[in-house]
Amino acid sequence: MSAATAIYPPDRVSLREVGLRDGLQLVRTFPSTEAKRRWIEAEIRAGVRHFEVGSFLPAGRFPQFADIHEIIETVAAHDGARSAALVLNERGAEDALRTNVDEIVCVVSATEEHSQANARRSRDDAIALIGRIRAMRDAAGHEALINVGLSMAFGCSIAGAVDPDEVLRLVDLLLEAGAETIGLADTVGYAGPRQIGELAGQARTRMGRVPLGIHLHDTRGLGLANASAALDVGVRLLDASLGGLGGCPFAPGATGNIVFEDLVFLCETNGFSTGIDLDALAQAREIAEASMPGEIFQGALAQAGAPANMSWRAAP
Amino acid sequence: MSAATAIYPPDRVSLREVGLRDGLQLVRTFPSTEAKRRWIEAEIRAGVRHFEVGSFLPAGRFPQFADIHEIIETVAAHDGARSAALVLNERGAEDALRTNVDEIVCVVSATEEHSQANARRSRDDAIALIGRIRAMRDAAGHEALINVGLSMAFGCSIAGAVDPDEVLRLVDLLLEAGAETIGLADTVGYAGPRQIGELAGQARTRMGRVPLGIHLHDTRGLGLANASAALDVGVRLLDASLGGLGGCPFAPGATGNIVFEDLVFLCETNGFSTGIDLDALAQAREIAEASMPGEIFQGALAQAGAPANMSWRAAP
Repeated sequence: MSAATAIYPPDRVSLREVGLRDGLQLVRTFPSTEAKRRWIEAEIRAGVRHFEVGSFLPAGRFPQFADIHEIIETVAAHDGARSAALVLNERGAEDALRTNVDEIVCVVSATEEHSQANARRSRDDAIALIGRIRAMRDAAGHEALINVGLSMAFGCSIAGAVDPDEVLRLVDLLLEAGAETIGLADTVGYAGPRQIGELAGQARTRMGRVPLGIHLHDTRGLGLANASAALDVGVRLLDASLGGLGGCPFAPGATGNIVFEDLVFLCETNGFSTGIDLDALAQAREIAEASMPGEIFQGALAQAGAPANMSWRAAP
Repeated sequence: MSAATAIYPPDRVSLREVGLRDGLQLVRTFPSTEAKRRWIEAEIRAGVRHFEVGSFLPAGRFPQFADIHEIIETVAAHDGARSAALVLNERGAEDALRTNVDEIVCVVSATEEHSQANARRSRDDAIALIGRIRAMRDAAGHEALINVGLSMAFGCSIAGAVDPDEVLRLVDLLLEAGAETIGLADTVGYAGPRQIGELAGQARTRMGRVPLGIHLHDTRGLGLANASAALDVGVRLLDASLGGLGGCPFAPGATGNIVFEDLVFLCETNGFSTGIDLDALAQAREIAEASMPGEIFQGALAQAGAPANMSWRAAP
């Protein structure tokens, strides 16, 4: 069994909390380091194990991630909990490899147009960078997993429709470059369940034992329908954020990531045990919400509660 | 081909607008008759053809439905548009059969507990009533379809979990009693996609050529995931309301029916043509919203817009 399949086993669902990274990129108020710590610890108590905690970027431009070293240590202090951090270049990778981070997240755009506009590099260059970061990781003897997110994989706000065969070609190139986990991202919430099922199903076949993740936004209301379609075709690794924190950079005021609590409910009702206790998760949500006054936390379960006929205490 | 399959053909999706009935049961401000007329006509321009317009109930207690005769005539004035109205007893059925209403909607609870608490009659009595209403319809030579909604079919706020076999048994009894269309309702939003797929799939097999509808609430965020699961198992008749109008009587502040616009987007992205123009539907939403100041209209598409890479003009 490879490291990646040990961490994200194919026979159960793993949920990644991305609110502390993707979420904090779009909020106006940033939680203090202490607030982040309480947020993470509350989610760990609820059973959450995977946290994307920030980006290795200049703290001057991204003050919300200035405390990334402390936050990685916060996660590292808890047995079984794992941190992931975004890295955009070799300098970021160097910084990451000097920490206890468990996962290095890199992003490649599915379209050339978005790659140039967003990262100011071609897709080929972005893929070559993955190869170099993988080599740096290997040379350092570091255990961090190389997780590559393929953004705009289901539709692009610049290029429009995205050819699924092109996405699969990029998946092959990422595997060659050394990606150990690949996430297909519906960055702007263009996807529908049929599209998710078809492309994720084909990507899984292509990827063999390499875990396939799905990163969904609820921009057009289909986030959980898409998550359900992904589960249907065997995807077992999904991103979400508490309260759906994080909007959509291309649709002001729109909802962002799929809501972690609601995703837990979806998984459990579809028969997938998440190991996550919804009551404890609700407490974590309160802690996160209190640390960011004025930010909108989405979520149906938070409003309506779980069905009265079900127990949502996680199995021991 | 039976009347019901001519109206709700098995080879394409039919969407029923229930906001003027289910929606108006839970709002505080009621639109004027003229506002309802403009709302309906705007939706007809967008391509909507099926409207649940109200209930035959004492106008003293339900002033929002006092104009039901005029609203039925509003719909009847448009070729191809069809009205449906709720009937709770024989007196209501008599009233309905004196109008041009195209569909008589009756409701039976899936659980004995909810039947007694909500309708103050047993399920057996409720089913016997369907038989008598069907006989009244036949005797009157009226063409109104008998559409029975089975409420709490996926979970009950009083009884808790609902045995799917019990629901299927009730479906059989409703068919015997003369129901011409049966809708399974997730009245309190307890269902998940797997449950919807399994029960709706079995019900369809049971019902043969009788159309099966699905009435979903988004109370716990899974409304569209459930709709997608229903489409997956061949359900082609779905209820929704513009802006998700109508809450949940058992969860104050919670979202209500699934959002009509978002359901259109789901259907289209899953490859089902609805014949509905989303731009024109957005105009209808504005009209409805303006007629009910202070009411909350939900909806992701209304906030974020349709994806830029797609045209949402309905095919001619």
